[in-house]
Amino acid sequence: MNQVEVCLTPELIHQFNLSNKIVVAVDIFRATSCMVTGMAHGVKAIYPVATVEECLEKGTKEGMITAGERGGQKLEEFTIGNSPYEYMQDEFKNQSIVVTTTNGTRTILASLAADQILIGAFLNLRAVANHLVSSRKDVVIHCAGWKGTVNIEDTLFAGALIEEIMATHKITGDPALMAHQLYKANSHDLMTISKESSHAKRLSTFGIGKDIEFCMNQSLYSVLPEFKEGKLQAIM
Amino acid sequence: MNQVEVCLTPELIHQFNLSNKIVVAVDIFRATSCMVTGMAHGVKAIYPVATVEECLEKGTKEGMITAGERGGQKLEEFTIGNSPYEYMQDEFKNQSIVVTTTNGTRTILASLAADQILIGAFLNLRAVANHLVSSRKDVVIHCAGWKGTVNIEDTLFAGALIEEIMATHKITGDPALMAHQLYKANSHDLMTISKESSHAKRLSTFGIGKDIEFCMNQSLYSVLPEFKEGKLQAIM
Repeated sequence: MNQVEVCLTPELIHQFNLSNKIVVAVDIFRATSCMVTGMAHGVKAIYPVATVEECLEKGTKEGMITAGERGGQKLEEFTIGNSPYEYMQDEFKNQSIVVTTTNGTRTILASLAADQILIGAFLNLRAVANHLVSSRKDVVIHCAGWKGTVNIEDTLFAGALIEEIMATHKITGDPALMAHQLYKANSHDLMTISKESSHAKRLSTFGIGKDIEFCMNQSLYSVLPEFKEGKLQAIM
Repeated sequence: MNQVEVCLTPELIHQFNLSNKIVVAVDIFRATSCMVTGMAHGVKAIYPVATVEECLEKGTKEGMITAGERGGQKLEEFTIGNSPYEYMQDEFKNQSIVVTTTNGTRTILASLAADQILIGAFLNLRAVANHLVSSRKDVVIHCAGWKGTVNIEDTLFAGALIEEIMATHKITGDPALMAHQLYKANSHDLMTISKESSHAKRLSTFGIGKDIEFCMNQSLYSVLPEFKEGKLQAIM
């Protein structure tokens, strides 16, 4: 058996040894859900960057679509914000997107010590699980949280992913056990508790409740984005 | 309604504003369980200190009983270790104890910005809850975890305490919601999941499974220790 651990926020990632492991980076509301959606709709590559300036510069210089948010809201200078629906546009096929978000980008960039970094969301849950099951590697599910705090929706995803890979991966450490318990206690109705989350409440004040509902769809897409050499590309 | 929040490890306490709030410091296995047990058996005061040297010096100079552990094991130079059973001795009545532990002491000392610091454990759950309900103050339950990592047993306690004060305190933030969910999912049998915790497994290799069982007893004692001016004293 391999092991599966859960890091509840990037602020605790230093407690994990990532070498030789696969990290699954997760930011359900909404960065990794957007990335998966974009890739599923034919986007060629996505470049996560840390700052707004970097995003605009790369967008201009390399003719990329600019995307992202700060505090949950779209920035005026960007082409699109951080809604999965914006990532479905036909004209983005075979294009590249450069994106900066509050939590998701930080999580990916804090996982560089891993052997492989995958992008996970409920939207591609089964695709991530299938890859992990056949990987024979230990796994750390790295939850983005919100500004360093622990959140419900990313932890729920961690629990859901653990449930899918239990035949090959042993729950290791208390956060993984807690995430799995939280998922099991709510698996009959993930939407109710997700709507109770601080993040969903925060986002709902921007009138994007439909994003929340969309992000909770399980295995809608079979795409699997990997982060490698500065960009995300689909490896499945 | 007042608010109740949960900090899952001292490494995240900077995310919380403690001013004007009551902090409940929790280290179920075993520091706060020991403190509550000692106070319930007539110990006059307990002085938590950060280092072994400080502990030995204060013990010698001021004629106090020395107590504590490093990595879960008693230190040779100390009178007692970190088992609640050691805190029950008749000859400790009206005596003072100076204690240093890996996680519990750190948690108390990281809570100094609060208006009041209480010592919580399953052993005095009801006493803590009664105080909070009548306090009309916001509450942060501060879990000690283990070496900065999040643990099950302290999170379970947080959920149990929230359950007791829901009439006066509103769950605020995702960690509090998660703790409460975790408790509700396991309230019929807290022992099973507690024994699955990393900490219990670690401690059981020292042959102290009976400590684990003892620490999970609910409201065995009505004592309520408060940390103030460097020491714990019973306020109830």
